[in-house]
Amino acid sequence: MTFPSKVKIVEVGPRDGLQNEKETIPADVKIALVDQLTKAGFVNIEAASFVSPKWVPQMATSAEVMAAIQRKPGVIYSALVPNMKGLEAALAAGADEMVIFGAASEAFSQKNINCSIAESIERFREVARVAKQEGKRLRGSISCVFGCPYQGEVGIDSVVDVLHRLRDLGCDEIDIADTIGVATPNKVHTVMQRLVQEFPIERLSGHFHDTYGQALANIYASLEVGISIYHSSVAGLGGCPYAKGATGNVSSEDVLYMMQGLGIETGIDLDAVVDAGQFISKHLGRKAVSRAGNAIAAKRMAG
Amino acid sequence: MTFPSKVKIVEVGPRDGLQNEKETIPADVKIALVDQLTKAGFVNIEAASFVSPKWVPQMATSAEVMAAIQRKPGVIYSALVPNMKGLEAALAAGADEMVIFGAASEAFSQKNINCSIAESIERFREVARVAKQEGKRLRGSISCVFGCPYQGEVGIDSVVDVLHRLRDLGCDEIDIADTIGVATPNKVHTVMQRLVQEFPIERLSGHFHDTYGQALANIYASLEVGISIYHSSVAGLGGCPYAKGATGNVSSEDVLYMMQGLGIETGIDLDAVVDAGQFISKHLGRKAVSRAGNAIAAKRMAG
Repeated sequence: MTFPSKVKIVEVGPRDGLQNEKETIPADVKIALVDQLTKAGFVNIEAASFVSPKWVPQMATSAEVMAAIQRKPGVIYSALVPNMKGLEAALAAGADEMVIFGAASEAFSQKNINCSIAESIERFREVARVAKQEGKRLRGSISCVFGCPYQGEVGIDSVVDVLHRLRDLGCDEIDIADTIGVATPNKVHTVMQRLVQEFPIERLSGHFHDTYGQALANIYASLEVGISIYHSSVAGLGGCPYAKGATGNVSSEDVLYMMQGLGIETGIDLDAVVDAGQFISKHLGRKAVSRAGNAIAAKRMAG
Repeated sequence: MTFPSKVKIVEVGPRDGLQNEKETIPADVKIALVDQLTKAGFVNIEAASFVSPKWVPQMATSAEVMAAIQRKPGVIYSALVPNMKGLEAALAAGADEMVIFGAASEAFSQKNINCSIAESIERFREVARVAKQEGKRLRGSISCVFGCPYQGEVGIDSVVDVLHRLRDLGCDEIDIADTIGVATPNKVHTVMQRLVQEFPIERLSGHFHDTYGQALANIYASLEVGISIYHSSVAGLGGCPYAKGATGNVSSEDVLYMMQGLGIETGIDLDAVVDAGQFISKHLGRKAVSRAGNAIAAKRMAG
């Protein structure tokens, strides 16, 4: 086993986490959250999504958020861009990294965007070209790598095909996402070992959901392969759109606690992340979905 | 890596899980729970504790529970016995396995039972002798292996010392317990690799708490060492007495989901365990503390 000595944690709470919230969250709350996460030491924060507000009303304040956050030099603030219009808005807002996406499941692609996987990625060609021309980082996210809510099993060949397409568009980083949280560690180990043969290991990331409680075990299995970029969401923000009431994104606090225990450097202050998690959970009027976050908060109350 | 192809899951919910509940749970609810767990296929259920009701009022109905459960041949129904009086009651109740215990932390031992670790285990000598004489299985549980709420770090030498003492009393099985859930997988790997040199690997068990969300990753790390017995609690019953509101025992549903994904045989029907988890959670008036349990229940509602 050759564990990385250092990992990059991409905080996705402000975008992937909050986007499914029903109640409108004021821009100033989102700004305060991003600023807290910046101060906590994250070097990459997914802060915005320039999709149509008709699709995702919660993200309508993205330009406002991007304009007001206190940026720290060196920190990458990422934005999801579904098309050229989104890219233009993200460029105007000064996003550092553009995130494009594709599903590894044909059924998911058809159901969600009504076209084939191949077509959906082809549509990003111009987005990718302009993003690179403007000197921006480009990240590609592959959803449903370990299973799909519509077709169930997803073949590795399909994942590799999407990986190649995103690589060929010039992606600097590619996310391997377990969108519905069904993966277990041996499968993760096998899939990751295959994918590192197709794309530089230091630019592959693991995006795990904790729907069935497997996320940390899956991250551990990925660490064993040598993957050194992981996505997580403060306070476990996100939920699972495919199972109401179930857990979504793995919580940043749980991931950071594990990295700390493993002696893997993240550069992030776990206590400050717990604070940020308590802040946003208080705003949302519910308990954080983070075991480590809640345990640390409980110990503070007791101490 | 040589994963076991088959593991034994010890369901500890009815005893370790429920013992800290403030509200008295009627015996018939506990009986129904144990019966559901038996039907689900667990081959070992920690069902009772013969401690003084002054210490643990919730366990006062243990004899009643043991008398009324529908026992399945081959299933081991275990009982915690703190002393000879407890052993006699457990023998009268027909418990199949007697559980004795000791902490790996001197501070924990002093604080909890006001004597040294060595004295505390010495006090079990007669209990162990009579239990074996009566043809019962004897299990020894070592708490605070990975950390202590009072002294913090716990040395491996102290763990090995307790292991030797319990082995010498004739324990058939010994539990390695992360009582406060602070362990992370590499430490677990290291500790387990050391302990399998001291006691037969097939009779060592991992008892993990999910207080910081690390339990499944820790079980995965133990599987890599070859440990093949794990404790878990239906619906994550238990909580953490050292951090109010934090998670305690790892949930059986999450563990079973992982084993299923790893292709490791347990003989247990996950769906039936989800039912049992929903049953007891409904009785307790709260949501189950199991990610997999809640996700499966949510999917049923949606389907």
